[in-house]
Amino acid sequence: VRVGLLGCGRVGQALVTLAGRRNAIAGWVHVECVCALVRDLHRRRGETDVRLTTSAAAVLDAGIDVVVDVMGGVEPARTIVTAALDAGLPVVTAGKTLVARHGPALRALARRCGVTFSYEAAVVAGVPFVGALTRRPHASDVNGISGIVNGTSHFVVTAMAAGATTARALTHAVGLGYAETDAEADLGGRDAAEKLTILRHLCGEPLATVDDVLCRSVRDLEPADFAGAHLLSGSIKPVAIAPFDAGSRTAWVGPAFLPSGHVLASLSGVDNAVQLRRGAGETVTFAGPGAGPEVTAATILDDVVEAATSRRAESEPWLTQQGRRVPRGTESAWFVRILKEPAVTACELATWLGELDVPYERLVSDRAGVYVRTTAAPWHAIERAESAMRDRGVAALAMPVLAR
Amino acid sequence: VRVGLLGCGRVGQALVTLAGRRNAIAGWVHVECVCALVRDLHRRRGETDVRLTTSAAAVLDAGIDVVVDVMGGVEPARTIVTAALDAGLPVVTAGKTLVARHGPALRALARRCGVTFSYEAAVVAGVPFVGALTRRPHASDVNGISGIVNGTSHFVVTAMAAGATTARALTHAVGLGYAETDAEADLGGRDAAEKLTILRHLCGEPLATVDDVLCRSVRDLEPADFAGAHLLSGSIKPVAIAPFDAGSRTAWVGPAFLPSGHVLASLSGVDNAVQLRRGAGETVTFAGPGAGPEVTAATILDDVVEAATSRRAESEPWLTQQGRRVPRGTESAWFVRILKEPAVTACELATWLGELDVPYERLVSDRAGVYVRTTAAPWHAIERAESAMRDRGVAALAMPVLAR
Repeated sequence: VRVGLLGCGRVGQALVTLAGRRNAIAGWVHVECVCALVRDLHRRRGETDVRLTTSAAAVLDAGIDVVVDVMGGVEPARTIVTAALDAGLPVVTAGKTLVARHGPALRALARRCGVTFSYEAAVVAGVPFVGALTRRPHASDVNGISGIVNGTSHFVVTAMAAGATTARALTHAVGLGYAETDAEADLGGRDAAEKLTILRHLCGEPLATVDDVLCRSVRDLEPADFAGAHLLSGSIKPVAIAPFDAGSRTAWVGPAFLPSGHVLASLSGVDNAVQLRRGAGETVTFAGPGAGPEVTAATILDDVVEAATSRRAESEPWLTQQGRRVPRGTESAWFVRILKEPAVTACELATWLGELDVPYERLVSDRAGVYVRTTAAPWHAIERAESAMRDRGVAALAMPVLAR
Repeated sequence: VRVGLLGCGRVGQALVTLAGRRNAIAGWVHVECVCALVRDLHRRRGETDVRLTTSAAAVLDAGIDVVVDVMGGVEPARTIVTAALDAGLPVVTAGKTLVARHGPALRALARRCGVTFSYEAAVVAGVPFVGALTRRPHASDVNGISGIVNGTSHFVVTAMAAGATTARALTHAVGLGYAETDAEADLGGRDAAEKLTILRHLCGEPLATVDDVLCRSVRDLEPADFAGAHLLSGSIKPVAIAPFDAGSRTAWVGPAFLPSGHVLASLSGVDNAVQLRRGAGETVTFAGPGAGPEVTAATILDDVVEAATSRRAESEPWLTQQGRRVPRGTESAWFVRILKEPAVTACELATWLGELDVPYERLVSDRAGVYVRTTAAPWHAIERAESAMRDRGVAALAMPVLAR
């Protein structure tokens, strides 16, 4: 299988190395990276036999069988991928921004051109399940998605739960190669919102957009939140949820409260997981490493092998049907924390929550704050309560409570 | 897509019902069950339009596109499936006994005949990952498999952990439809051994057999075991493990000790899960419902849709390479319980363990028993210690401790 690479950064180089190592094993599908599109021919890279070029046309015309996109971002990847599909070349991409913004259109184009377009590495790179969702109408007939889909924010939140400050946790993550120096897309939620959007496209919402997702940053978390969650027998994790609420926004990314014993609560570090809820209360979980050059490269290589050894004969009509199910978010319970500066008494808080129509189920407090677990309530009521408290100078933060 | 059924029991009837309901939705692949092979034409069944026959040849000649096997057991399923593949018909089966005993040979036959042979419903029916393992050489390049793959024994052990006797837990499981009256294959481990063997075939051990698996029954568990596991900060689950030990047996099915916080410990009831360990300490988890007629029927239908809409172009050479990896089981730590009848003191026990070359790491006791967590030790040493204690009339039971 002759592969043309778009991009030759960390993942591209890991791919070349892994393919070379695998080709040495008899009986494995031989994958050869013949050329790679790069921006700068003279940038320092590891030793590689791959021919580098700055011309996308030269890659597509190099007699290749499969195009692998590891450029990131939308352009020029979108233009080149479109040209490749038009030319009858199967495309494998790890580009979550590209797939989140233009996945349904590119899939439709691939179907018209009779070639495969696969992106298993775009969401929870180490666990193969995206391909199954595209091929299997019952498996993708879900009425709820939740998960931890950003490894960097998970690492940072796990470190914060163990007592580190956000800044120190982030420095540590950068040092281990888990985060870029500019981690805003990870901590602020945009990366997770893109992955959630890709999953929504596969699970009955082909018209979902990244802008539908309400994002809250894990930077809003305070040390007190972890202590309070512990007092209420739970933990805090950065999650993605859809459908989120019956209100205007239907998807959410941000910190959430997980009751102890929740499957997602047993994960830590940079682990990722996606849970799909189906008909009769069934939950399916896919968990494993979410990123890293080697893991991503192995998944891309598997996509290349699949593209080379199987052929799609027909279309997947169920993927293009908006509203195959129309999910309505259900009301969630909420974890609300209020820092004790200026001093807030539990009594005052309870009164406020009562006035604001958000009844609490459990209330605990320690030296740093007051922590409430509410009964089920719509997001707009919680949001109103939260901003009303903030208007009074109270440091309040609300997080959804994930059902098991 | 015209389907010929082999068997029309609970799963077959659920399949017919589900396909009928799905066909009413525009845009879905239309699946029609045209005829079904049955043993007895006159047995009472639910309302169905499916033509019943006692002739396998009549099913294969009915102008069908896909054969679905829901007969169970080995014969006559094996003979008919072989004939179907020979006739160029793709086959979907839920028959774990058939696939565990003859899967590699049937896969090879299917490849020679250029058709698909799929069995996603045979292991953890509700979670699609078996197909991905067959198609993806890197995903299936694992060096360890562990999991909870039998729902009945998981339900029984979960109920026992909550205080029920084995007998009462089993009666409850039968009442809920989770178990047959004769649950020996579930509780004794044969069902799990078959599923583990199917996974080993996909993960580099095409020559693995069901007889390689050392099976221990969950019937050996006593109420004291759950109390002891709790004292040592863990819980007990019925698991399947491969590779198990560097000794003669390389796979194990039976009760094991899980440290608290283990992903598998967060599951309960009839949940199933499979964990695959890869290269650099990465673990991938697939969890969800393991059985039930509706879940199994939906997974079979997805296999039918896949068989009808995609075509395998080439073979999967990596699946037939024995020893692609040669897994050596590592030594495990052990949880050992000794019932206090006849009275055993912690001191006596520690002495025995010391004499028997199994050093303990933690030792606790309560009124019912003494519980030990050993350091890493090979199975033959533990087995020797266990039978030596039994020879002295001590009710000892050893279980492996699962690593996270």
